[in-house]
Order: sequence, then structure tokens, then C-alpha cells
Amino acid sequence: MAWARWGRCPWLILLCVCAWGHPKPEELGREDVRDCSTSPPYLPVTAVNTTARLTALRQQMQTRNISAYIIPEADAHMSEYIGDSDKRRAWMSGFTGSAGTAVVTMGKAALWTDSRYWTQAERQMDCNWELHKEVGTSPIATWILDEIPAGGLVGFDPFLFSIGSWESYNVALQGFDRRLVSITTNLVDQVWGSERPPVPSEPIYALQQEFTGSSWQDKVANIRTQMKNHRKNPTAVLLSALDETAWLFNLRGKDIPYNPFFYSYTLLTQKDIRLFVNKSRLNPETLQYLNSSCKEAMCVQIEEYSQVRNAIQAYTSEDVRVWIGTSYTTYGLYEVIPREKVVPDTYSPVMINKAVKNSKEQDLLRATHVRDAVAVIRYLSWLEQNVPKGTVNEFSGAELVEKFRGEESFSSGPSFETISASGLNAALAHYSPTKEQNRKLSTGEMYLLDSGGQYWDGTTDITRTVHWGTPSAFQKEAYTRVLMGNIDLSRLIFPASTSGRMVEAFARRALWDVGLNYGHGTGHGIGNFLGVHEWPVGFQSDNIAMTKGMFTSIEPGYYQDGEFGIRLEDVALVVEAKTKYPGTYLTFEVVSLVPYDRNLIEVSLLSPEQLQYLNDYHQTIWKKVGPELQRRQLQKEFEWLQKQTEPLSGRAPRTASLTSLVAISSLAFLSWNV
Amino acid sequence: MAWARWGRCPWLILLCVCAWGHPKPEELGREDVRDCSTSPPYLPVTAVNTTARLTALRQQMQTRNISAYIIPEADAHMSEYIGDSDKRRAWMSGFTGSAGTAVVTMGKAALWTDSRYWTQAERQMDCNWELHKEVGTSPIATWILDEIPAGGLVGFDPFLFSIGSWESYNVALQGFDRRLVSITTNLVDQVWGSERPPVPSEPIYALQQEFTGSSWQDKVANIRTQMKNHRKNPTAVLLSALDETAWLFNLRGKDIPYNPFFYSYTLLTQKDIRLFVNKSRLNPETLQYLNSSCKEAMCVQIEEYSQVRNAIQAYTSEDVRVWIGTSYTTYGLYEVIPREKVVPDTYSPVMINKAVKNSKEQDLLRATHVRDAVAVIRYLSWLEQNVPKGTVNEFSGAELVEKFRGEESFSSGPSFETISASGLNAALAHYSPTKEQNRKLSTGEMYLLDSGGQYWDGTTDITRTVHWGTPSAFQKEAYTRVLMGNIDLSRLIFPASTSGRMVEAFARRALWDVGLNYGHGTGHGIGNFLGVHEWPVGFQSDNIAMTKGMFTSIEPGYYQDGEFGIRLEDVALVVEAKTKYPGTYLTFEVVSLVPYDRNLIEVSLLSPEQLQYLNDYHQTIWKKVGPELQRRQLQKEFEWLQKQTEPLSGRAPRTASLTSLVAISSLAFLSWNV
Repeated sequence: MAWARWGRCPWLILLCVCAWGHPKPEELGREDVRDCSTSPPYLPVTAVNTTARLTALRQQMQTRNISAYIIPEADAHMSEYIGDSDKRRAWMSGFTGSAGTAVVTMGKAALWTDSRYWTQAERQMDCNWELHKEVGTSPIATWILDEIPAGGLVGFDPFLFSIGSWESYNVALQGFDRRLVSITTNLVDQVWGSERPPVPSEPIYALQQEFTGSSWQDKVANIRTQMKNHRKNPTAVLLSALDETAWLFNLRGKDIPYNPFFYSYTLLTQKDIRLFVNKSRLNPETLQYLNSSCKEAMCVQIEEYSQVRNAIQAYTSEDVRVWIGTSYTTYGLYEVIPREKVVPDTYSPVMINKAVKNSKEQDLLRATHVRDAVAVIRYLSWLEQNVPKGTVNEFSGAELVEKFRGEESFSSGPSFETISASGLNAALAHYSPTKEQNRKLSTGEMYLLDSGGQYWDGTTDITRTVHWGTPSAFQKEAYTRVLMGNIDLSRLIFPASTSGRMVEAFARRALWDVGLNYGHGTGHGIGNFLGVHEWPVGFQSDNIAMTKGMFTSIEPGYYQDGEFGIRLEDVALVVEAKTKYPGTYLTFEVVSLVPYDRNLIEVSLLSPEQLQYLNDYHQTIWKKVGPELQRRQLQKEFEWLQKQTEPLSGRAPRTASLTSLVAISSLAFLSWNV
Repeated sequence: MAWARWGRCPWLILLCVCAWGHPKPEELGREDVRDCSTSPPYLPVTAVNTTARLTALRQQMQTRNISAYIIPEADAHMSEYIGDSDKRRAWMSGFTGSAGTAVVTMGKAALWTDSRYWTQAERQMDCNWELHKEVGTSPIATWILDEIPAGGLVGFDPFLFSIGSWESYNVALQGFDRRLVSITTNLVDQVWGSERPPVPSEPIYALQQEFTGSSWQDKVANIRTQMKNHRKNPTAVLLSALDETAWLFNLRGKDIPYNPFFYSYTLLTQKDIRLFVNKSRLNPETLQYLNSSCKEAMCVQIEEYSQVRNAIQAYTSEDVRVWIGTSYTTYGLYEVIPREKVVPDTYSPVMINKAVKNSKEQDLLRATHVRDAVAVIRYLSWLEQNVPKGTVNEFSGAELVEKFRGEESFSSGPSFETISASGLNAALAHYSPTKEQNRKLSTGEMYLLDSGGQYWDGTTDITRTVHWGTPSAFQKEAYTRVLMGNIDLSRLIFPASTSGRMVEAFARRALWDVGLNYGHGTGHGIGNFLGVHEWPVGFQSDNIAMTKGMFTSIEPGYYQDGEFGIRLEDVALVVEAKTKYPGTYLTFEVVSLVPYDRNLIEVSLLSPEQLQYLNDYHQTIWKKVGPELQRRQLQKEFEWLQKQTEPLSGRAPRTASLTSLVAISSLAFLSWNV
């Protein structure tokens, strides 16, 4: 799953805040956190002195007559993960958590973040900063209204605000005589100066043809057709999300951690293609690949990344209409386009096209998952041998699985920070071990591994939970019910165009039945060597309807605060279902190929249909991954897999003894309640 | 279910249009419809001559310099059913269907309606009218833009527009130099004149205390507390929906078909209570019941219904904030309140309070359903005797079930127009038989009855589908899968505050499994002697989260175009579920008490859990309704119910023969897949 910034959707964060295993307030005291009530205040060594940078920022604000300055943790492409040079809020406040917003006024500095990060914030911030334990625009706007005088101006960098977040602040401040002021020069950068990490400058490269679903020319032609067919006749499509441009041109870079993206925008019209990027990063072959030396319809004109706003402003001074996806376009570009020239959809046509993989892309992703399964199976098989020796910890384990993935063909690093969590750590929402802080793996507790890889042909993400000793009855029940949820959703048959939100409860029902649940979403889309969380595919309320060719994760879980955590995550392809009566129905084909832990499965809880599905799935793994292990002469792993994928035997009818069974079965033809 | 205007939600209509059994285009030709292509045009006798009324309307438009006039079928309270004096679009166009909007320009007249009504419109309209086969604001606005000149004004009666529909038209016309003009004098009424049916003037009465959940004083005090606790500190609550005022004061009337409502508004502040109503309809006892002769906080001041707009305008000229439910407030009131003085929520606090029944209201509704079951069981038992004689038709059947309901205590008429549909008629979305047009009931086909009653203590709505002969295997399968859906949703355990939309797919899964589905919603709230469709409770996307104490229908179905229709509808109370592990979980307690048709149940399809649920439910019916039938000395019905509620026996394991069963069972302890 990868937790970093999965919480684009407020409901997810809310669920986390309400329902999840985060440290309780009384536990916070045990950590080494700041205490601003003493004189002098107590600051742990982890706290950052922000006095000088705040003074410098306030000077910048004063010059511009700004009473408050909002600093979100975002980049100009609304990316999920952001590069170091964009971590302005972290630098300004000292707090490095992935979610949270800072506001600085002339007298105060304040940070808002959710419960996952409260302790971390108290450890990292000095006493210049107030910590606010809320999320969303509304409490921030209310605080600003209290803190700054009537007539006060609220500054912000429009490139770090989505259209939606600008609208929320605007609505919240409206009618209260405080005004938002868009300032394209980022004030934090002015202060950060030469200390700011450099913007990446490594080469941008074209994917080999064998790893692409279709050529960039075909993709461009396809988008142009969609423009022609759009009832509002857009003259251009503007692409702001980094994976949109990467996908369109089959180009990759490494500007963003875990994501092979590069800073860029695209403005595509019927007549030309304008790619805004740091030109020096494209070598002659790549420039040739892009036909960059001509000016016709199928030539990519390279323009400076920093010129995009001016270019859009100039373009929209003409009689044009620009099609945008409002979810990923920043206010920095939106504000220069006259309203009547905007053709807004929630997602750009590239985002929607990219979500549906063609058959070659499907095959590429299937192949990736076979190799990825080999790496994970090597790791799990190795753990079974080594955990009992007491020599493995969460961090060394994470390193090993990354090493195994690195040995697979086409590997290009992890697709997110590995969650390798033993015992109670697996119940924490954003846990990742470090070399310094980690827990030993043991046969006495459960272990959760949520990890994934980037490969030239695809991106993976899988979670398995295992126990090498004797799990408690409750652990087995919880694990089995999570598995039942995974199976029920995976084998569901549903009409084409059903939204994920309408069916995700099937992943929860087995837990709900006994009063258990989990506080996160049930799945997200995934890319072909692109993002590990590729929206808008998934099971959340703002995700688009399920369509044949989409890939999504399916990942129910259960978390027992302070004890253990379970998650079973697979990636599945949306395929056509064959139904008894004709109709366009869909179902899932699971492409992740790692067996579940039979030591944790309470078979008597499974329905005959669930058991059948489970045995079929394990057979599929055996058939697809077994030969690959043999080919690699991984004999131990081959034997381990054979043992793990043997058919499980079903439950006896509840409460029936052997004697009564025979008695009942003789009456079966008359009437028999199974 | 009652189809009349269930389609407040566009998705429902859309589903109907896409997926449902409506006549195919080629079938339309068979009906006696208008033909405007011949000269002179052919008009059936059912068509209405609208030439004179259109001329008169255009004169009214000309006087006001209006280029187009929009005529929705609505009243000033956004009611689901509307009174005859509000059927302006029907009178103007001749088309009497419950859904559709008319627009008249100086040269043209046009009607938009959905596929359920296309034939009816072609039969009822003359050639002055164009028929547009679309729904929603967008095509209407596009047509208006094409038809009227730049600078043209588009008139509408703001009391017939919700805030939302005004906003959609406004957005659609914005930037195109056409302007919406709110005209509070309804232009159709000007033309309709003395022919317009009189506005109801029958007495409004107070419910007896035994039929109310709490006194109006308690309800008022409760709402006032909510006003105090609201973070925006509203000074008043404005109630526009008719059931809000009826519920608040425990008053009833009969201005609206099937709904015991009366035309009214309420403006409630901390200091006073203002009820806008035709005062002459309140007798001295009712005036006394309302404390109408005083001016204190618990006195209801009666003001003229027609003065509400002026009163709101005057009230909001002060420093006040008015809390409204935007779903049921018309633009006619909204437009006179300065924006900063509006405290908008989707639903008013009265709507939300009313949705959650207190324990007395729950008991009242439970008791209603026992008596209602007696009426339906009398009818079903009578049908079993009389259908084979060939003397029953859909219309006489509907009359009989209404007669049986009328004989129950506290009966106050049907809660909607009875859907009594045999064979292929049950596949039509809005079918109701008439004395002239109906179909004979026979043992050769299925029969669907969807009906409900108003009683002083509650409102009911139940659908049963039956077959007295030999149903086909497909009919049995479809019926059983609809039943499985009903059971799966009814027995679902889910966390408190889950929205209905998230779980309604459980009612569909058994159908989806084999490629079947239904094209309507899965349920709606229901009132205590109020509306049969009491929103915002239900399973649609805009419904509020499920809460203990709500009542909702659960009503999956299946419709085979041109052959048969199945729907199984029950009313269920949301109750706390007892779960193995502690937590706040909910489930449903079904309060409808009429057995399903065992002749149509294919038991082998049911899981053991579904069969257990079914047998338990039938036992509950037997225990609750059996004694009531006995008390009334309804012996035949008592015997019928006994037979219908006997436990059903379960399936034998699939594909297993008696021999193999015995063989397998002896191995059961070793390993057995059930």
C-alpha cells in the first residue's frame, strides 16, 4: 500500500484518525518531545531551531505587505511523493512528516497535521511553532481569521495549491475582509537560498519500445481524436501531473522518490506538441526520438519548464479552449486562463486513457508480477529458515527483499518505502523501520511486509502477513476474515461501469460480521513503471468506474492496537466475467502471485466457494511461478512454494459429528441442510 | 416502492432509461399516437388541444418581455406527489406523466421527459409540442440557447425551482447573454384562471397523542437546542418541505395525494414560532392545541401562507442567520435572503431528526406493519382461492387489497397508487392498472403487488411476487436470486454511520453472479403516517448514513422485458447488532411480515445462512401475525399462513449422489469440502 501520501482523500485520513492504531495521548509523554511550558523550554536534540528562518520569512512577508503566508507540503504537479527541493514546509518548521500545512504570521507560526504525526511534530519542532491537531482547510482558515487584522492579506504560492484547495480557502475567507494573494515567487525559497537542495538535473530517457504499450505518436493521435469528439471542442489539452507527460511520451526520469517521473508540463493542440522541461536533460537521441527539430503536428517542441505559465497565458489570449483535469492542475496555471476558455474535467483525457491498460501493457504487468513474486517468495522462504535463528530484524529484512527485487530483470528500485513491521509495529499506519530503530523478527509474533518494485515493464505492490510460530485463535480468525474479504472482493462479478466505492464493502463484510473493521481504503490503481498509487482507479468515492483493463490493488486489513497488524494486498486486473446469462459483467484476475500463510488460515471459517477460490489461486501461483523457480534452480524456494500451494481441505459441517454425518447423509436426498 | 416521482435522483432515472423494460421504439408505433408529419396531422382522441392556452401564455410572456418560460411539474415545497392545482405542466401541455419539464417560447413549445413516458406523451400532446427524449437541465438549456435571441430573458416561477435546479440553469446559461428572470406571479395560473382546481381548504387536524412520538413542544425545544449547538449560530430554522411542518407540530391534512400533508411553512426562532398556513383551516381546538393566542416562545403564531416570502424578507433585513435545508427550499424563498445570512445544510435539522424514529415511533410502526400484514395476507390467501377461477384482474385485485387495508384499524387510505401487475406488465416501471385497461390474473403467469397503506400510527410499503401455477426454471432462479439479495442486505452487519450506498450491492450480488441486475434503487426511508418515500434515508448516493432508529425499504428486483417482473420489498428498522467482538455495529430488523412465495423459491441456490435466515423470518411472521389472524377468527388465512411459514429444507451438496455422500461422510473427519 505505501502510506506516505495516500491520504489525498480526506475521508481516508479521517478514518485513520478515528479508527487506527496511533499512539494514545498518554503514550506521547513517554517519547522525547519538546516542552514549551518550562522556562527555558525543553527541546529534544531532534528539534530544529527555526528562529532565523522565521525572521527571514517575515521580512519577505513584510516587503509584500502580507499578514499570513500558507506553506503546504506540495509540488507544482500535485505529486504524491515530492522531491527534496519541494520540502519547504519541512525545512521551515523542522517537521518532516509527509502530511501537514504550516502558516506563518508576523507573530506566530502554526502547523496542522493528523494524528499519525503528532509525536513526530513534538519531537522535531521548536517552540516557535504551535501544533494544531486538526486536518482540512476550515480550521486553518478560522485560525487565520483570528490571527490577522481585517484587511489583511494572506499570501500563498499558487503553484503549490490545487484549484480545489484554493477554492476552499477562498470560500472560507470570503466575506470576512481578508484576501488571498497569489505570489508566484515562493517566499520560503527566497529564505532557503543556497541551502535549498538543487532541482534534479539527471538525464530524462525514453523507454525501450518493448516496455511501452504504444508509441507516443499513437497516444498523441488518440488524445487528439478525443479532443475532436469532446462536445466543448477544446483546442488544447494541458497536462500537469508528472505521470501524464511521462506516460504520453514514454519518457522516464528520477526526480521524485520511488516514481520514475521528471518535472514537466505538456500543452497539446491539434497542430503542435509543447513539452515544458529542462531541455539540457534531453540527450540528442531523446530529442530525435521526440522529433524535436521540426514544427509540424507530430513534432515535440521543447520549451523551458519555467516558462509554462507565460506560455499558457499567451496561448489563452487567443480564441482557444484548454481542456484540463482539475484534480492535478495547480491554481498557478488555472488563474492565468480566462474562465470561459477552461474546459474542466476532474481528470484529463490522458489520466483516463492511462488508467485502462491495453493488452500489451496488461501482459507487461503480468510478467512483472511473476518476477516480483520470485523475489518475495525468495524472501519469505528465507525468513522461514532464518527467523527462528533470531538474526533478522525489520530493517535487515526490508534490505533483503529490496536486494532480491534488485536481482530481478528490469529492476529499477522499490516503488515505495518498504513497510517491514513485526508485532505491534504492524498496527501503526505509517511505520517503516530504520537502521537505528527496528524490531527483531521472531516466531512469537506476526510479521507484515508491504513492499513493491519498479521494473521497466511495470510497478508492483504486495502485502503479506505471516507467523512462524503458534498464532492465537484471535490472530487466526482476524487473518482469515481479512483473507475472506480479499477473496470475496476478488471473485465478485459486477456490471461494467460499477464504481469501486459501491463494491468495496465486500472486502469488509467478513470482518464486520464479528465487529471488526479497518480504517483505510481498499485499493488503488497502479502503473506500468509509473506511480504505485495511480489514481483515479480504486475503491474510493472519487475514483472512476471500473473498466476492463484497469489494474487495482485489493487490500483489506485488520489492526489490533499495540499487538499486531494484518494486511493482505494483491494487484488485480479488471477482466470480463463470463456469466450464465448474457451481459457485460466484470470481475478481477489477481496478478500478484505469492501464497497466503496457511499457518494463519482458519479453514473452518471459509465457505466452500471461498475455499475453492483459495485453492485455485494457489494452483495458479504454482503453475506460473513454480517453473520460473525451477528455471532459476531455486530448489529450496521451489519446495517451499509447492508446500505453500497444496490444496487446503475444507470445513466439516458445523456441529456435525461423524456419526450424525453418516445418519444425515442417508437422508440427504429427502432433505438436507448443509 | 411506488414509482411516481421516486426519480428525484437523476441516476435512478438514468438507470431506468438504460436498463429497464420500457417499450422499444418499434413498439410505440402500435399505440394510438399522434402523427404530426401528415397534413392535417393525425391526433388520437386522447390528445389535448393546447392552441388557445399557448396563445394566452405567450401574451403573458410578451407583456413581461420574456422569450422563454420554463414550466416544471413541481410545487412550492419540492413535494414528491403534487396536488391538482399544481399540475401546471400537465394542463399546459396535455401530458399528464409525473416527470417532465415544458418550455414555451414565442414560436415553439417543447417537452422533455424520460423513456417511461414517451408513448404517453405522444398520445396526449397535440402538434403544438415537440417531444425531447432527454432528461436533466443541460439539454433544456442548450435548446433554449438555440431558440431565443441573444439578450433574451428566460422566465420562471422561483417557487417551483429548487435552489439546485436554479443553479444548474444559471450555470448553463451563464456567459451566453441570456438571463433567468424570477417571476413570482405564475404565468400558467394567469392563463388557467377559473379552470384551475381550487387549492385545498379541508381542515388540518392534530394527531391523537397516542400516535405521536413526542409533543410538538418537545420537538421545538429539541430543534432549538440544535440551533444553539450549531457552530454558525443560526437565529432561525426555515422549514419548507410539507412533512417537516406536519411532523414538527403533529398536524396532518390531505392536500397532497397519498400524503397526509398540508400546504405550510415554518419559521422557528428561539423566541417565536411562525406557522404559515391558511388560517381558516384550523378549528378552535387546533388553534388552542398550538397555543396560537399568545406570543411567547412556546406559542405558535399563525400567519398567512401567501405571506411567507414577505415575512422572510422582512426577518432577514435584521442581523439574523437562517438555517435551511437546501434540498427542499425553493429559490422563491432563497433569493430573498442575503447570502451571508443563509446557514445552508443539505437537509434541515427537522428532516434529520424525523429520519431517526424514537422508541415510541418504532413501536407504532411495528404495530402498523402487523395490521398491514393481515390485510396483505388476506389478499394473497384470497387470490390463491380465486385466481384459478379466472375472475380476478389487476384492477379488481388492487381494489380488494385497498378494501382489506381500509378495514384495518386507524386506516387512512393507500400510501401510493397500487402497482398490481400480472405477467409482462410487472416489467413496466410505472405500471398501474385502470378499470378500463388491465390484465387478468392467471395461474399461468407471475403477479407482482407493490402497495402500502397510511395509518394514523404509520406508513407501509411492501412488494410481493407470486405464482400459482408452475413457474419456469428461469423464473424460479430469478425470484430466488432477488430473495437472496433481499436476505443478504437484510442480515448484513455493518459499522454505525455506514452510508446505504456503500452496502446496497449486497442486494444485487446474487443476481450479478449470473449476469442479472435491476435498474432502480434499493430502498428509501418511510414515515410515521407521513411520506412513503421519506428521504434522506435509503441506499442512494445522496442519502445520509444509516443510524439506529431509521426505517428503510429493502427492495431488489428483476425485470424480464415483455415477460415478467419480480420485486421483493420489505421495510426494515436499523437496529444495533450484537457482534462477537465489541463495537458499534448495526443491522436490520425487518418489520414487514408477509411470507415469500415458496412456489418460487429454488432452495438449492440458498446458502445455509440464507436458508436459516429465511426460516427464522417466516417463524417471526408466524409468531407475530398468526395470533392476530386467530383473534380475528380468520381461520382460512391462519391456515394459509401456517402452510406458508413452515420451515424449508436445505440443499443437498451440489453434484453429490446419495452413494457418494455416504462415502464422503465417512471421510468427513479427515477432510471434507462441503
